[in-house]
Amino acid sequence: MQLHQASWPEVEAYLKRSKGIVIPIGSTEQHGPNGLLGTDAICPEVIAKEAGDEAGFLVGPTFNVGSAQHHLAFPGSITLRPTTMIAAVNDWIDSLVRHGFTRIYFFNGHGGNIAPVNAAFSESYSAYSLDGEACPYQLKLENWFTLPGVQPLVRELFPEGEGGHATASEVSVTYYAYPEAQKQVEMSPKIAPTGPIRDAADYRRRFPDGRIGSDPSQATPEKGAKLVAQAKRAMIADVKAFFEGQA
Amino acid sequence: MQLHQASWPEVEAYLKRSKGIVIPIGSTEQHGPNGLLGTDAICPEVIAKEAGDEAGFLVGPTFNVGSAQHHLAFPGSITLRPTTMIAAVNDWIDSLVRHGFTRIYFFNGHGGNIAPVNAAFSESYSAYSLDGEACPYQLKLENWFTLPGVQPLVRELFPEGEGGHATASEVSVTYYAYPEAQKQVEMSPKIAPTGPIRDAADYRRRFPDGRIGSDPSQATPEKGAKLVAQAKRAMIADVKAFFEGQA
Amino acid sequence: MQLHQASWPEVEAYLKRSKGIVIPIGSTEQHGPNGLLGTDAICPEVIAKEAGDEAGFLVGPTFNVGSAQHHLAFPGSITLRPTTMIAAVNDWIDSLVRHGFTRIYFFNGHGGNIAPVNAAFSESYSAYSLDGEACPYQLKLENWFTLPGVQPLVRELFPEGEGGHATASEVSVTYYAYPEAQKQVEMSPKIAPTGPIRDAADYRRRFPDGRIGSDPSQATPEKGAKLVAQAKRAMIADVKAFFEGQA
Amino acid sequence: MQLHQASWPEVEAYLKRSKGIVIPIGSTEQHGPNGLLGTDAICPEVIAKEAGDEAGFLVGPTFNVGSAQHHLAFPGSITLRPTTMIAAVNDWIDSLVRHGFTRIYFFNGHGGNIAPVNAAFSESYSAYSLDGEACPYQLKLENWFTLPGVQPLVRELFPEGEGGHATASEVSVTYYAYPEAQKQVEMSPKIAPTGPIRDAADYRRRFPDGRIGSDPSQATPEKGAKLVAQAKRAMIADVKAFFEGQA
Amino acid sequence: MQLHQASWPEVEAYLKRSKGIVIPIGSTEQHGPNGLLGTDAICPEVIAKEAGDEAGFLVGPTFNVGSAQHHLAFPGSITLRPTTMIAAVNDWIDSLVRHGFTRIYFFNGHGGNIAPVNAAFSESYSAYSLDGEACPYQLKLENWFTLPGVQPLVRELFPEGEGGHATASEVSVTYYAYPEAQKQVEMSPKIAPTGPIRDAADYRRRFPDGRIGSDPSQATPEKGAKLVAQAKRAMIADVKAFFEGQA
Amino acid sequence: MQLHQASWPEVEAYLKRSKGIVIPIGSTEQHGPNGLLGTDAICPEVIAKEAGDEAGFLVGPTFNVGSAQHHLAFPGSITLRPTTMIAAVNDWIDSLVRHGFTRIYFFNGHGGNIAPVNAAFSESYSAYSLDGEACPYQLKLENWFTLPGVQPLVRELFPEGEGGHATASEVSVTYYAYPEAQKQVEMSPKIAPTGPIRDAADYRRRFPDGRIGSDPSQATPEKGAKLVAQAKRAMIADVKAFFEGQA
Repeated sequence: MQLHQASWPEVEAYLKRSKGIVIPIGSTEQHGPNGLLGTDAICPEVIAKEAGDEAGFLVGPTFNVGSAQHHLAFPGSITLRPTTMIAAVNDWIDSLVRHGFTRIYFFNGHGGNIAPVNAAFSESYSAYSLDGEACPYQLKLENWFTLPGVQPLVRELFPEGEGGHATASEVSVTYYAYPEAQKQVEMSPKIAPTGPIRDAADYRRRFPDGRIGSDPSQATPEKGAKLVAQAKRAMIADVKAFFEGQA
Repeated sequence: MQLHQASWPEVEAYLKRSKGIVIPIGSTEQHGPNGLLGTDAICPEVIAKEAGDEAGFLVGPTFNVGSAQHHLAFPGSITLRPTTMIAAVNDWIDSLVRHGFTRIYFFNGHGGNIAPVNAAFSESYSAYSLDGEACPYQLKLENWFTLPGVQPLVRELFPEGEGGHATASEVSVTYYAYPEAQKQVEMSPKIAPTGPIRDAADYRRRFPDGRIGSDPSQATPEKGAKLVAQAKRAMIADVKAFFEGQA
Repeated sequence: MQLHQASWPEVEAYLKRSKGIVIPIGSTEQHGPNGLLGTDAICPEVIAKEAGDEAGFLVGPTFNVGSAQHHLAFPGSITLRPTTMIAAVNDWIDSLVRHGFTRIYFFNGHGGNIAPVNAAFSESYSAYSLDGEACPYQLKLENWFTLPGVQPLVRELFPEGEGGHATASEVSVTYYAYPEAQKQVEMSPKIAPTGPIRDAADYRRRFPDGRIGSDPSQATPEKGAKLVAQAKRAMIADVKAFFEGQA
Repeated sequence: MQLHQASWPEVEAYLKRSKGIVIPIGSTEQHGPNGLLGTDAICPEVIAKEAGDEAGFLVGPTFNVGSAQHHLAFPGSITLRPTTMIAAVNDWIDSLVRHGFTRIYFFNGHGGNIAPVNAAFSESYSAYSLDGEACPYQLKLENWFTLPGVQPLVRELFPEGEGGHATASEVSVTYYAYPEAQKQVEMSPKIAPTGPIRDAADYRRRFPDGRIGSDPSQATPEKGAKLVAQAKRAMIADVKAFFEGQA
Repeated sequence: MQLHQASWPEVEAYLKRSKGIVIPIGSTEQHGPNGLLGTDAICPEVIAKEAGDEAGFLVGPTFNVGSAQHHLAFPGSITLRPTTMIAAVNDWIDSLVRHGFTRIYFFNGHGGNIAPVNAAFSESYSAYSLDGEACPYQLKLENWFTLPGVQPLVRELFPEGEGGHATASEVSVTYYAYPEAQKQVEMSPKIAPTGPIRDAADYRRRFPDGRIGSDPSQATPEKGAKLVAQAKRAMIADVKAFFEGQA
Repeated sequence: MQLHQASWPEVEAYLKRSKGIVIPIGSTEQHGPNGLLGTDAICPEVIAKEAGDEAGFLVGPTFNVGSAQHHLAFPGSITLRPTTMIAAVNDWIDSLVRHGFTRIYFFNGHGGNIAPVNAAFSESYSAYSLDGEACPYQLKLENWFTLPGVQPLVRELFPEGEGGHATASEVSVTYYAYPEAQKQVEMSPKIAPTGPIRDAADYRRRFPDGRIGSDPSQATPEKGAKLVAQAKRAMIADVKAFFEGQA
């Protein structure tokens, strides 16, 4: 069930059988010459939707703009400052907790979100820890690309040129989701350079077309379908364990 | 063109012909017994997409959770505190301005967003006004439901029971967008009560099923299609005038 | 009764008969060639004082600097950033609620305050709505110039050149309050131009002497007296209804 | 000249001869059984007005609600949290600096404001100090009651029972300003107890009627007139020295 | 007992016999040609350690970077903005209160901390005062250099050239603490100038080598030892009175 | 060279030969029955001091209270909320950058700091990335326990019971630093349980004596000496590479 297409009585009924919800969380940022700006939001969104439909859990709206300051030298990238992101994630959490959700699973598509979301969780728990009260809910952050079985499949599909940003795998997932948005672009060099991530100007100087270590010209909808299938399977198991309090 | 399905070189090319962008902005909140929680985000999103496709302007990601504290007594509603929303809207603005956008058109689906978004605009302009510099960009907030021609059509389609929240018209637009999400629910009373909006507990006491003054059981995809067509026409004219600096 | 001239035992006694208080809220900003910088604070202050004296309700101190970034290109204008204003309004509310006030009526003289004050109210309610508790108090914002009967009188007194900023009516009210502060200034053009409000530099370019659409050279203390009398009558009725919980 | 009764062209003309402005800053808080809630705002306001009229300097609007959390157990007291006060004072400073004021003299009536206003000054200077730029303006905080000659006069007028809060002198100044607001109240004990200031509940327990160490039943308008005259003389000298850069 | 060298069971045991803790609080900022950047943190730290060891009270970690914007034109100085310092001091307080500490004694070495720490205390108390609850703890700020007997000893040791910043006495205390860090530097002029403190550029212009009114070339470890002994004695008495609720 | 024992002219001289500085960053939190509350600050502090002395780089003051909300159910633990920590780290960075430092190496002793410090770095870079300017400095976070060669040595010294919190290795380092602070405590169970980290109440329930997966009764000063020696070697190489811009 997708929350944005449900009515409140339907969510009320859901809460009688489960206190868990999944929130896809991504970013809107450049993904190289042939990748979509929405890649990091689309990937967790599409996997979460299929998983939620199959396993019957509730999927909330996608947190679609995240922490992406380092991509701002490429047009179209949008960022939240980390402190804004911490505030926003806490408002989402507080709203969901108010309804009785006790397991909130943030399903992530963007490495740059990991630090601010973990900081947001710590901010959320701090209120209880400083008050000396037990926190009534549990928070979890999981990336689709680190779920069990995903990286082995990635290495099988892309023995070379998976890379670290604008990866062959994530572009494939978006091509599976929006085949009409595929873009044919010659990559030069074939495999992009690698290096550390700092501010936006430094990033563009090091990675002139936005890619890090990747050759996303290998991306296809078919490979995306395989990745989604594997990630979905792994995610359903992970979500179930978390919702049942075993995670 | 939708930003989340574009690549950065495509946005770079777009910026050579236009400095304007549209950001759909809504809310995730209860919309009565048969309305979708995503209604206020879906309405501007679907209208903006059709308008952008037709008129060739860029549509950014949807700001999908807004200011909805008064709906929190109904499961599934999510809110940003107004101060969080002001910070987030400013981060979006700053990111877009960084790329050279000078006309940012927030296309709104939720009355509760009007105050915080206008406060956010004022916060954004304040930096320039206090520094004594001319601000290089212009911001505009427009609701789909107040565009020219929309309310006349609403009155024609729903002579009675349009209402103030969970309106017949907005539910129609979502049914047009997601016909599979239509819900048949008996309304009781036929037309919901009206009154002031304060905190969530007060709201639920006054408006037990979430509607204000409306009978959204009249909603149909067909009526939604007519509303979208009219809103699209009006919006294209309004966006063009704004992008060309005449608004 | 005016709070700043009362002692705490007098306020304590007042609270035994009423839980309502009025807070005049304005701005310190340019009001054209012959208008006072304090206009928007003076208008609600003088009307509230007369109304409070007549009807026996408590009038708090005037919140005299508001949201006025767009006027900063004219010397003497002072602004709060919207986020500061939201914090300050909330501190005032929290202080008054602490004493047992349950009806707080902000009586406004400045259009630019409407968005941040409504955002502040929403911020205030959010604490209760997110906690799932009923908020024990009610907040209301009302402008003196939109009270019943005021605009009809304005149109009668100033058939032309009332305008949108540095209006003939508000200047009249201040001349009634401080006749010694009247200023004779030739207006050129007679009626000022109109247009949108953005940042301060844009404002000064569009409206070189600060007025929008108005000819305040028509202002007189006598007209001000009539406006105050009408606004006072309407305000007393409005405040009573709100304090009695009917608003 | 009082800013709130001036027009912007008058302030523009003033700025050609002086870059200095005085901001009265006070508090709205209980002042014992016969003192006004507005005492700490009224005192600097009335002295500044007379001094400004005599010496020709500009007096801005009164910052009338300050840092008064410790008085909240007495009805009518209003506080800003210190962080809110720091933000608001900085917005006032930034607005005035924007117009070219380079000497801003905060004329204070409340001991509890000293820490937050000094913290606000430090916050203001920090922006320049961290950027490595010279700050173009100077800030000063001065209390009316610590000006040269004031305490000697106080000791002469009130050999006993001046006290530390709701002092005989400050109540006298307000009775001079608003003789109609005088209140006759028997004090018991004649002279109030003394002690440290902490939170509001502790304050009310230690100082049941709000006074600290004072007997304000000695207050009269005549004594207030003498205090205002002395403070005015001393303030004019102090302001002149500061405006001329010698302070 | 020093908290950072204790285990949690040792602190748990301590809390059974005392609810009081001492937090040394200082600054990291230039202290003239021969003074250490850590002077203001070292002084309260070394005195508190000796006092705590002798009298058996618990000494927490040193808050070692404070409010020092005015020193930023000298390399090595580090500052917190006052608002950051208020937030940090409140987090320390909230953490300690959570464990049951009810007397928190901030033992200060830096004049610039006085305003922000007092503002932080007021912020801390505000939460209780606005809620109408009694605050369960007491906060105190005391400077080592204003303890009884310290200034008389200073005047005896340094009849001339003690000064206001980079004082002979504070440098002596650090030389006592770290004799290996003594620096021999010719002072020119022998005694530094005096004046007001504003932003960093202004400070460096007025006080070219960082000293204010002092001749710290008189500093010796032996004099430092005497100062520490006197401050320790006075501090033990002051802490005891505070912990026992008599302060 | 340690900054807190240096004078500003010494730091000025240092800046002529290097633009790099090391900031030890830790936490004050329970470390099980025999570990010191200051463990996570002491470890990076002692290693950085020895490394700085040997290799001649500047070591700043220790950031000694970090992000530790999950430890608050154990007496003596102190935390910063993540948003406070982000603000404080940014103030330290801004101060150091102001002096011309362009390589700031945060040397960390606490896993819980990783998310907020990385978020702080992102916040710092955001200012430049949003402004479209190249950031003039580089930030790095490195943990002493993940430096090359450290974990192999840990496994050699503690084949079993190193654990995840209150580890045998970190307790050893503190015993090396403060041998007088060693504590003999029987551990029960010998090796502590493992599990996820959430709020403080949950933590104490899962890990009753504070340890996670460790047996720190194996800790000795001798093992600590070996760890410090290895970490120092690795850190010197890492710092040099970073200062020389190769990291």
